[in-house]
Amino acid sequence: MATMTAEQRRSAAKAAHEEYMATCPTHQLLDIMSAKWASLILIELAGGTRRFADIGRALPSASAKMLTQTLRSLERDGFLTRSVTPAVPVQVEYTLTPMGASLIPLLAAAKDWADANIGAIHSARARYDADNA
Amino acid sequence: MATMTAEQRRSAAKAAHEEYMATCPTHQLLDIMSAKWASLILIELAGGTRRFADIGRALPSASAKMLTQTLRSLERDGFLTRSVTPAVPVQVEYTLTPMGASLIPLLAAAKDWADANIGAIHSARARYDADNA
Repeated sequence: MATMTAEQRRSAAKAAHEEYMATCPTHQLLDIMSAKWASLILIELAGGTRRFADIGRALPSASAKMLTQTLRSLERDGFLTRSVTPAVPVQVEYTLTPMGASLIPLLAAAKDWADANIGAIHSARARYDADNA
Repeated sequence: MATMTAEQRRSAAKAAHEEYMATCPTHQLLDIMSAKWASLILIELAGGTRRFADIGRALPSASAKMLTQTLRSLERDGFLTRSVTPAVPVQVEYTLTPMGASLIPLLAAAKDWADANIGAIHSARARYDADNA
């Protein structure tokens, strides 16, 4: 049986870890959560079914194009459903799926942690920058 | 007293929301957590103080340059401390601060949710793409 050199062992460990990183579920989740508007849309829908115009009013600094893209991405990932009622004008509504609803406590915990600690983070940054100026 | 037009009201709401978004604590936290390697470094340090080489072995697909940058950023934000012991060779150790340690349960909850739901997310994507092909 061939024995690997230290260099070959390092190379194999690097390749295995790269493969893990490419498929790491937590990383994929953080990418989804940190996409601009995604978390805010989910939190808005935690209050119940919303029409497109409702979401636009709740997030007035998001462009209609960004909202459309983000809603489509969240629908594709299974966090919400989009239903179209034929009417004049056509009525489009968005509702959290059970999976989408199950993410809300995690978003709420992230919000609580952030609200409690953002001041300390900014203070730490100011101290670090003063010490390393 | 001057009354705002509907357009002025929308414009004021948009400006206020843009300002909120620019300083939103949750968004800043999600940016920190989703930075490549940041969460994995914090989780590694949850096991105790680590030397630079220990972290490199735990995350073999991260380059030394990326690890150095990410450790510096986490130190700047107050999540960890870096201590240098004069020795030959110099010994550099990283330790979670209390604030850094307080983020670990949230990272663990994100990991649990992701592990439980990543399969459903991928299934939803495949269904959506098949329906919209």
